[in-house]
Amino acid sequence: MTKLWDKGYQINHDLEAFMAGSDPLLDLKIAKYDCLASIAHAKMLATINLLSPTECEALTSELKEIIKLLVTDSFNIDMDQEDIHTAIENHLIAKLGDIGKKIHTGRSRNDQVLTALRLYSKAKLEDIYQSMIAALEVFYAFTSKYQNIPYVGRTHFQKAMPSSFGLWGGAMLESLLDDIKLINNAYQIIDQSPLGSAASYGVNLELDREYSSQEMGFNKVQNNVLYANNSRGKFEGIIIHGLSQIMLDLAKLSTDIIIFAAPEFGYLNLPEEFCPGSSLMPNKKNPDPFELIRAKSASVISKLMQVMEISRGLPSGYNRDFQETKEPLISSFEITQQSLEVVALIMAKVTVNEEKCLAGFSPEVFATDHALALATSGVPFRDAYRETALNIDKLELNDPVSNILAKKHQGATGNLGLDLLYQQIQDLKQNSLG
Amino acid sequence: MTKLWDKGYQINHDLEAFMAGSDPLLDLKIAKYDCLASIAHAKMLATINLLSPTECEALTSELKEIIKLLVTDSFNIDMDQEDIHTAIENHLIAKLGDIGKKIHTGRSRNDQVLTALRLYSKAKLEDIYQSMIAALEVFYAFTSKYQNIPYVGRTHFQKAMPSSFGLWGGAMLESLLDDIKLINNAYQIIDQSPLGSAASYGVNLELDREYSSQEMGFNKVQNNVLYANNSRGKFEGIIIHGLSQIMLDLAKLSTDIIIFAAPEFGYLNLPEEFCPGSSLMPNKKNPDPFELIRAKSASVISKLMQVMEISRGLPSGYNRDFQETKEPLISSFEITQQSLEVVALIMAKVTVNEEKCLAGFSPEVFATDHALALATSGVPFRDAYRETALNIDKLELNDPVSNILAKKHQGATGNLGLDLLYQQIQDLKQNSLG
Amino acid sequence: MTKLWDKGYQINHDLEAFMAGSDPLLDLKIAKYDCLASIAHAKMLATINLLSPTECEALTSELKEIIKLLVTDSFNIDMDQEDIHTAIENHLIAKLGDIGKKIHTGRSRNDQVLTALRLYSKAKLEDIYQSMIAALEVFYAFTSKYQNIPYVGRTHFQKAMPSSFGLWGGAMLESLLDDIKLINNAYQIIDQSPLGSAASYGVNLELDREYSSQEMGFNKVQNNVLYANNSRGKFEGIIIHGLSQIMLDLAKLSTDIIIFAAPEFGYLNLPEEFCPGSSLMPNKKNPDPFELIRAKSASVISKLMQVMEISRGLPSGYNRDFQETKEPLISSFEITQQSLEVVALIMAKVTVNEEKCLAGFSPEVFATDHALALATSGVPFRDAYRETALNIDKLELNDPVSNILAKKHQGATGNLGLDLLYQQIQDLKQNSLG
Amino acid sequence: MTKLWDKGYQINHDLEAFMAGSDPLLDLKIAKYDCLASIAHAKMLATINLLSPTECEALTSELKEIIKLLVTDSFNIDMDQEDIHTAIENHLIAKLGDIGKKIHTGRSRNDQVLTALRLYSKAKLEDIYQSMIAALEVFYAFTSKYQNIPYVGRTHFQKAMPSSFGLWGGAMLESLLDDIKLINNAYQIIDQSPLGSAASYGVNLELDREYSSQEMGFNKVQNNVLYANNSRGKFEGIIIHGLSQIMLDLAKLSTDIIIFAAPEFGYLNLPEEFCPGSSLMPNKKNPDPFELIRAKSASVISKLMQVMEISRGLPSGYNRDFQETKEPLISSFEITQQSLEVVALIMAKVTVNEEKCLAGFSPEVFATDHALALATSGVPFRDAYRETALNIDKLELNDPVSNILAKKHQGATGNLGLDLLYQQIQDLKQNSLG
Repeated sequence: MTKLWDKGYQINHDLEAFMAGSDPLLDLKIAKYDCLASIAHAKMLATINLLSPTECEALTSELKEIIKLLVTDSFNIDMDQEDIHTAIENHLIAKLGDIGKKIHTGRSRNDQVLTALRLYSKAKLEDIYQSMIAALEVFYAFTSKYQNIPYVGRTHFQKAMPSSFGLWGGAMLESLLDDIKLINNAYQIIDQSPLGSAASYGVNLELDREYSSQEMGFNKVQNNVLYANNSRGKFEGIIIHGLSQIMLDLAKLSTDIIIFAAPEFGYLNLPEEFCPGSSLMPNKKNPDPFELIRAKSASVISKLMQVMEISRGLPSGYNRDFQETKEPLISSFEITQQSLEVVALIMAKVTVNEEKCLAGFSPEVFATDHALALATSGVPFRDAYRETALNIDKLELNDPVSNILAKKHQGATGNLGLDLLYQQIQDLKQNSLG
Repeated sequence: MTKLWDKGYQINHDLEAFMAGSDPLLDLKIAKYDCLASIAHAKMLATINLLSPTECEALTSELKEIIKLLVTDSFNIDMDQEDIHTAIENHLIAKLGDIGKKIHTGRSRNDQVLTALRLYSKAKLEDIYQSMIAALEVFYAFTSKYQNIPYVGRTHFQKAMPSSFGLWGGAMLESLLDDIKLINNAYQIIDQSPLGSAASYGVNLELDREYSSQEMGFNKVQNNVLYANNSRGKFEGIIIHGLSQIMLDLAKLSTDIIIFAAPEFGYLNLPEEFCPGSSLMPNKKNPDPFELIRAKSASVISKLMQVMEISRGLPSGYNRDFQETKEPLISSFEITQQSLEVVALIMAKVTVNEEKCLAGFSPEVFATDHALALATSGVPFRDAYRETALNIDKLELNDPVSNILAKKHQGATGNLGLDLLYQQIQDLKQNSLG
Repeated sequence: MTKLWDKGYQINHDLEAFMAGSDPLLDLKIAKYDCLASIAHAKMLATINLLSPTECEALTSELKEIIKLLVTDSFNIDMDQEDIHTAIENHLIAKLGDIGKKIHTGRSRNDQVLTALRLYSKAKLEDIYQSMIAALEVFYAFTSKYQNIPYVGRTHFQKAMPSSFGLWGGAMLESLLDDIKLINNAYQIIDQSPLGSAASYGVNLELDREYSSQEMGFNKVQNNVLYANNSRGKFEGIIIHGLSQIMLDLAKLSTDIIIFAAPEFGYLNLPEEFCPGSSLMPNKKNPDPFELIRAKSASVISKLMQVMEISRGLPSGYNRDFQETKEPLISSFEITQQSLEVVALIMAKVTVNEEKCLAGFSPEVFATDHALALATSGVPFRDAYRETALNIDKLELNDPVSNILAKKHQGATGNLGLDLLYQQIQDLKQNSLG
Repeated sequence: MTKLWDKGYQINHDLEAFMAGSDPLLDLKIAKYDCLASIAHAKMLATINLLSPTECEALTSELKEIIKLLVTDSFNIDMDQEDIHTAIENHLIAKLGDIGKKIHTGRSRNDQVLTALRLYSKAKLEDIYQSMIAALEVFYAFTSKYQNIPYVGRTHFQKAMPSSFGLWGGAMLESLLDDIKLINNAYQIIDQSPLGSAASYGVNLELDREYSSQEMGFNKVQNNVLYANNSRGKFEGIIIHGLSQIMLDLAKLSTDIIIFAAPEFGYLNLPEEFCPGSSLMPNKKNPDPFELIRAKSASVISKLMQVMEISRGLPSGYNRDFQETKEPLISSFEITQQSLEVVALIMAKVTVNEEKCLAGFSPEVFATDHALALATSGVPFRDAYRETALNIDKLELNDPVSNILAKKHQGATGNLGLDLLYQQIQDLKQNSLG
């Protein structure tokens, strides 16, 4: 009696491993949330008299036992049980007999997966939020410390105009702060309880969906039961999109650091504890963590594509295809979380080499400032530009520090608004998602 | 002197077409916004005394003339002008001489493209918002009219349980309402003025970025000038992600309609004015518009990938790669807008064939209701399930209409909450984005 | 002395797990090939006198021991060893002392990974080839058996013209036969030995790359040592593209079967041993394996995207980003292999329900045949088409079997050329890749 | 009577633009091939007596007239004609009356699009092949000229070991030569005539598909008529995959050149005729063409995903979704062709700055050579490595030119095998695809 849908025939054995896929492994990551949802479901069934108070108590305490087993890796899923939901129901029946057979009244596995993934996703988004704040703080400290060290800003990978580590760090901070909005928006959209949607079509019981929703801490019930199922894949996409944008920011950060740490630049020092060597070349200390983050940004984007495509064009209602969206969701969370932690770990120890930064300046980096100075003296800008361009060799080296500090309009090197960013980070620390 | 950066050498002629790409065509779509941004820039330059009031007046009135020319398709971009920005500056210089040469004081083309695309995107998101509301209203009318017509709900493309067109339409409505949140969130994030960021590094002028931002109606200044450039690609991704989710909803809708309109189902009647025929087969009336929408959903997702990948891993500051993000942004807007309009156009005339819907029911569709009825009478659900499964042939046909109306828990077929959806749509009509 | 590049400092512990990623797990899948490559390398070093015959013998026999340990899962990679290459070198040093320290002479880990993955890929492509042949044989048997059972062919998911299971199965067979060409082409392109490329720049030793290449059974040496490293990611893309095309064929097959197995069609019978049920709905027997294959086709395509994007735009030479291409390569092989096996397993037992197939015919399905019959009698086709269209209700039901058999031009239902396909499959069985 | 399927009703006007999409524009690019296929079809109809010799002659000569009109842009598609196929049939009917109405006997538009796209693709693949050879020749000349100029080879964007422009150019050449295999394989797979497949199900006429196939120069008939339609999207994917690999190679080339041309390196000189300036910064000469190629590589990869996803999971037979695969196919051809031409154009004039290349060397670049020299003297490599690593500061600068010439094993800097590459290029010039 291992399968929930057992009705007298067996699934071909060679097929079972294929259908389970990596579910037994992945399901352990959402098992706790499945237990929490089952507890809420049991309590709700008790309020509508489909479980007696005693039955409800027996189920909830046994489910709490399973949560404890999970903490110590003592709860297992057998291959022929298909998934965590089956393993839990079988466990409850083994322990509680007929009472265990009642836990599934009025719900389906779709329902359960949806609910468990929703709770899991809320928890992981909260983790991401906390890791973002930690990374922002490290980054703020770096930026604040080195804000007035100039380096040659680039466009097209060519020398462009004077920049500074205040400008660079501030740009990263502002970008990550916008990402937090995406994470928050994703959280707010998914914060609705699908429990009670059953197999996409509801049930002929007076389920109190509002009760179980509140019991689990959701902001509201996801009303339409078909939409609950149709949102599978969709909500995963919204979440992974938010994570992708974080990874894209970290990828840009990584590319910059890889360049700044190259010997021809030398603007940044990466402590050697973060720089693996080569098996062959005794001279190498490489920025591997940043290369990996850059690569992993492509992985997360691919996983966004994957969930969107798996669900694209499926008819309404549950389709087994959705199972394949579990792995990209979970791995996207894990990659992003780890990447944020690694960046915070390393950026806390990266230092700026001021001497190398200053050595990069050459006269033509000040050409634009020169042309604009001409323009303020009345020469039409286009003429000032051309005159400067044709006399580029006559330009002289300016003092980079004075130059960056003299740029005073909003958001420029002399007016970065870092204090406001600090305040935003502090405000975020006082709050949580939702 | 056609190019803005002219300084005494010519670009290889064979290269010009490659570098311009489809820009001359695409730029005409954003030209109006470039003029509006130039007007704001000119006014700002006047406030900081880099233009006299007369010069400012001359430039703004000439820019308004260009907007008029654009309306009648009378403003052109020559290939060797590279882009709209060059064409406009050249036009201003031709008309106003030295005054025209001053318009570019303190800004760069990156700046201009960023600002014009930002204004364009805000306007297009507002258009999408309006089209979403129009589609929601049509869809609400359809759903409300046919809400109590039952059909056999499916999972795994197999018969599952009784559904209804109220449930189906309500699911689409709720999904589209969540999409509006994504559109609104995207709007709020991008509603910041990049103007004044120059070539990513600001300028040595006292630009009043707050002034020009307010002049253009932005919610705030995008503070850090490097972030302004780093957000190219990123903001496009945020927008296209929102559009993708709309397209994914329309793709699911399309798949459902294609199935429902097939002769083996016949649940829906598509008026023949929407159904092209075949060049060879005299019998065909096909649901082409829905097949195209389904396909176009893949196109928009691909364009999301495209902008994410183009910008992934680029170093900070402007890189020419960004030019390639223009086409996917613009075409994603256009595809989504057209798809919403087509769905609204057709759904206003689609009718439900009640007879065909009822004919689809067979006894096993009521198996779950039967098992749950047993469960309410005290049989543990897992036993009730198994008993029903083993006696599936003994089930009888129920009345589908009574069945769907009897499901009264929140979000089920007998308690769809359509009134609340109607109210939400009305509220959206009173508001706009931002 | 756990790390190959150990030179007196330690990598930050918190970083190690991030950098290893899933490598320790994945590396076990390629470990055997790394040993084989190391044996070839050792033998080559002996031929150029960098190892004595005794040293070579000691290394090769110890490497063969490791292969035996791998078979029984008795060889482990410690986390702080980073990867299989380190684990093996450490093992050799532990067993053989200074001799072990010589195995890495003149090669790098890049080199090793490249070579091991190349050998692994060749073996897996051969496995795919064998599974393709097995699937083709099953499919041929099905097609041959049911070739003259007609069903209503569809376009636009609407009824179109008479088709047959011979036509349907033949289409699948021909498509899979084209895929084999892709697999073969991929094999031929990657069948070149990268060993000796070192860290992308060769070494100052007289390596005999031709010797080691032949020792490992490669068709040729991958000549340019920088190209060897630059082809990382590229060759993975070529392979996964081939696998993607197989998966796309299986996805089309799956969609067709899901439709044909739905009760409204009923053309195919899926034995219940392949159809899981629902946890809630006692009536369900679902085509889950085919839904999973359809979803997994999106996964493999995403993995193609992933490897292309990870490597896109990287500078020449080794970059750590490449590590992230290992997982998508390995999982794409595994998904495709399993999917082929599942399809062969199930298709061997699927049967056609002739009665249901015939019941689907209605008069308008013969409209095209009618119009063309008119055309052969001299009426211009466009007029014949229109006349038929306007009198579609007057058409009569024809005999579907006679109809399909009467279509005699090449590739039509009465002239499928299945014998030629059988012959091609037999020829493939006689051969192997390359 | 504008639409081919006209049967007494009109398509909703607002829908027509949506359904036509960019087809009228794209169709002009394949129009010539549609005429060539129609000529072959007409001749075949004559051989089976469905056209008289006179009718056949009238049709073929009118079709040749249309080809002439196309050359001078004098043939138009009206919006309400939907596509080129309709425009041509309407034109033939207008010119030839009843004879024109016979051209469509026994074929469908699917058939026509398939055939025209197949012929178009063969021609474009041949163009790509020629452009590849032209690029290879330019690249060979560059490589040969500068082969013995050393520069510091990199891994992880850090200094690694001595490289040379011979090694770099040779790597590009070998990679492009492998791409030619992909192009050739794609050509061979698609070189089969779909004509006669009709609407996916053949027709009740004795079409001589072999005749029309040979008439159009195809290698063989695509046998199964359902496979002909099922291969839509699939063949596009195979082609675009080949183009993607070319673009990925050009993207790597571009990244390298962008780095080499940066002032901190200065290894390459890009003539200013290829380097646009900035509208704001008078000092800029930017490597825009290479940035655009890098970005366009992401576009082509996205288009590969697009065609794979559009067709993924569609049921057998024609679905309108396929129309959306036309744009990505055509634009992928155009982007790749232009990119190859631009690379050949520029690389013919790029020069190497030997002085800058030599200036990049520093002692640690020779560390690996040093360690291996120790190893050849009998020190176990792992010890030699460690000793070198711990004494990295004591290394001395070697002569880079002697160093690269001394590496004599196959594929290393002193044994590049460029002559063999030259020979391969010459052989390719003697041949064509197929």
